[in-house]
Amino acid sequence: MRPELGILRAEFGADQVLDGEAALPFERDWRGRATGAQAGRAMAVLCPRSVDEVQAMVRAAARLHLALVPQGGNTGLVLGGTPDASGAELVLSLKRLNRIRRIDPINATLTAEAGCVLQTLQQACAAQQLLLPLSLAAEGQCTLGGNLATNAGGTQVLRWGNARDLCLGLEVVTADGLLWSDLDGLRKDHRGLNLRDLFIGSEGVLGLITAAVMKLAPLPRSRLSAWLTLPSLEAALQLLPQARAALGDGLSGFEVMGQAAQLLLPELPLPAAPWALLVEVSSHRDEAQTRAELEAWLAPALDAGRMLDAVVAHTEAQAHALWALRESIPGAQTRAGGNLKHDIALPLDRIAAFVADCEARIQRAFPGARPTVFGHLGDGNLHFNVAPPVGQSLAEFQPHEAALNRLVFDCVADWGGSFSAEHGIGRLRAAELAARGDAVGLDLMGRIKQALDPANRLNPGRVLASGSDGNRADA
Amino acid sequence: MRPELGILRAEFGADQVLDGEAALPFERDWRGRATGAQAGRAMAVLCPRSVDEVQAMVRAAARLHLALVPQGGNTGLVLGGTPDASGAELVLSLKRLNRIRRIDPINATLTAEAGCVLQTLQQACAAQQLLLPLSLAAEGQCTLGGNLATNAGGTQVLRWGNARDLCLGLEVVTADGLLWSDLDGLRKDHRGLNLRDLFIGSEGVLGLITAAVMKLAPLPRSRLSAWLTLPSLEAALQLLPQARAALGDGLSGFEVMGQAAQLLLPELPLPAAPWALLVEVSSHRDEAQTRAELEAWLAPALDAGRMLDAVVAHTEAQAHALWALRESIPGAQTRAGGNLKHDIALPLDRIAAFVADCEARIQRAFPGARPTVFGHLGDGNLHFNVAPPVGQSLAEFQPHEAALNRLVFDCVADWGGSFSAEHGIGRLRAAELAARGDAVGLDLMGRIKQALDPANRLNPGRVLASGSDGNRADA
Repeated sequence: MRPELGILRAEFGADQVLDGEAALPFERDWRGRATGAQAGRAMAVLCPRSVDEVQAMVRAAARLHLALVPQGGNTGLVLGGTPDASGAELVLSLKRLNRIRRIDPINATLTAEAGCVLQTLQQACAAQQLLLPLSLAAEGQCTLGGNLATNAGGTQVLRWGNARDLCLGLEVVTADGLLWSDLDGLRKDHRGLNLRDLFIGSEGVLGLITAAVMKLAPLPRSRLSAWLTLPSLEAALQLLPQARAALGDGLSGFEVMGQAAQLLLPELPLPAAPWALLVEVSSHRDEAQTRAELEAWLAPALDAGRMLDAVVAHTEAQAHALWALRESIPGAQTRAGGNLKHDIALPLDRIAAFVADCEARIQRAFPGARPTVFGHLGDGNLHFNVAPPVGQSLAEFQPHEAALNRLVFDCVADWGGSFSAEHGIGRLRAAELAARGDAVGLDLMGRIKQALDPANRLNPGRVLASGSDGNRADA
Repeated sequence: MRPELGILRAEFGADQVLDGEAALPFERDWRGRATGAQAGRAMAVLCPRSVDEVQAMVRAAARLHLALVPQGGNTGLVLGGTPDASGAELVLSLKRLNRIRRIDPINATLTAEAGCVLQTLQQACAAQQLLLPLSLAAEGQCTLGGNLATNAGGTQVLRWGNARDLCLGLEVVTADGLLWSDLDGLRKDHRGLNLRDLFIGSEGVLGLITAAVMKLAPLPRSRLSAWLTLPSLEAALQLLPQARAALGDGLSGFEVMGQAAQLLLPELPLPAAPWALLVEVSSHRDEAQTRAELEAWLAPALDAGRMLDAVVAHTEAQAHALWALRESIPGAQTRAGGNLKHDIALPLDRIAAFVADCEARIQRAFPGARPTVFGHLGDGNLHFNVAPPVGQSLAEFQPHEAALNRLVFDCVADWGGSFSAEHGIGRLRAAELAARGDAVGLDLMGRIKQALDPANRLNPGRVLASGSDGNRADA
């Protein structure tokens, strides 16, 4: 046992300083990558039960010159919240900080601790007729702190924005172990520089989010979903402004699935088509009114041949089933043998041209490789995953990963997009960011990191790749 | 003539380096404060015509060890964009950078330079059936760059958020004169730390915004306004969740005016009452449908005695007149002799109790002083202005300013609010921020300022009061 472990156990108790078997679930990432350079091994996993303990643990880590890797629900996809292979990092799990501090119907706010599971929060708000409009596939496991640390996106961004847009304030433990609290829940508040939005999305490299105030909305009286099939991605994109004009702010979901993604699903509501859309409308009106409005948009679009076919869910159970299909794509991909993943964003006016171009480039470079495209079309955000050619395993295809990533990300850059949309940077994309990021911007980011965490103790090497001086400045 | 002026003129030409009479409009602030400590005198006013020239001017200022004060439409209320009295600062006016670079209907974005006047941008978007949902009293003169530098609020925040919530990306000249550009117009983009939202609202102390991409929405098909009178502020607040439930996202304005504010106005649509609300509903539906929905909310609320009276504008001209009345309050206050102003925010569930408490404290400390309260109730943002007792001039009341501010801001703090909601900090509230701000947060802000502008050359002394080392580190 390393002496640091004994010191930490003496201060915090064995219950809150895990290692060995107990640490395993915190060391392995969501996608189970536990081999090679991506394998994680922590010196220990710290599990504070209060904000005071978070502060004490940050100070203890500083005294011991140890790096801290904050972790929420451990559902990240970019190796941002799991330890590296050194065995020298401490994971700091926020999961035990899981108290809902307050739901305020008049102020329409939720104040909750970082370790609260998103779905638990959604349900607690719904019980008071309020909507926490953040929704993503991992919601049964991911935590509020992680959602904010990664500025989570998901399926409701079109209407409600990313996690950052929903947050009114944070409580943060700094690299020095001090507490910065901004939980007043104000809609307008201009007291100096905007620290809140800097911490949000910083993936734990600037401070540890321990609690947040989130904006809520009235729970919609009705929600309807429709599955549409389309001849082309252009046709799907042309529907978006039409849907906005016809449905206004009621349009709360606009998800796209290419044919390869549809074909992974067991029971499709409509025959697989070149493209399919899952559209959601939410409204303060009753269901009959919402249905009438949705159908008033769909019928003429169908008649005019702007879509191939459309089906509207008739019951809430049917709607849930459509969304479950959509959310099951990642799992279905894994069961189908897996693929190489890219989480990208494009300007809406260029996304169709990008997909055509990128698919053509892939066919030239990797004949037979199968792009499986789906995502949040309303946000210009595609999960552009590439499965191996038929007959080739993922392991056989994997050696091409670097070349494929280069091809896809070059193409994204050519069309003015981003190689990182909603999954974060973590360790997985840190080198990519260092290579492709704007040099001036990267310099500013490095200065901010240096200013707020001069010892580089918070999640070192994540987001901002460390230079030749190694990942940890003082370890 | 100071030698620096000659050097600047030699490099940039006399047309772009103003002094004397030509500089005056840039030295005086919007409210005409030009006496005592608040008087401004610039060494020169720089007027670049391109981003390249902004960069060159920033570098020239660095070589000459001069401070730069960025300025947009010069409509700020907190002395954030006008020079101090030293005569040693350079104003850098962004007004000539006024090109609309692109309006993209499919991506629903506007890309425009910092010097564009907000109203010009609103009109250009409306001509393409798109809404730039930022609206404030100064819109005929304020500029996009200033709106973003101050994270402007206004009357549409309830539905659309502050300026920050509408911005997808920035172009910024750094303190080193380098250019950071992030104008891809993406809805989701996670490439490292969030510089965009740090620059937004930083009032020019971290960098100079030269252009931005803004999110647009479809132009509403109908907009209706109603003037309601209420027996109490509690009654107005109780209407808010009811209005949200009945009108959903259609509710786009929820402005409040106390009796003293109403009595300043020439022709009221309803007799002055303890409180009045100006409510706006915007919709993608036609006017008849929107009117029916609005009236379906108002009629039972009137019958139930939840409001005293209500009138819905029947024509667009009538609606404009109601909003003109609301926007005329600040001017009417000036004509009535002026007052001492506070731009504050409270949590919605505490705002009525705050107003009662603060008015009582004022009566005890300054008998006869007349609070004139109005603002954006939906955002918890009040303009809490205090006129002198009848018979006393503003000049006679002014000596009480510091004590009055202390009383009001103490009361705001007691009720968990903010002494600075939407007007910014500038020089006017920098001491207040230093005294009242969270110490941990202020330390982090100071480190960020130091990291991005180590020579303290960008808008020194604004937002972050400089310590005993003086306003400018190297001048």
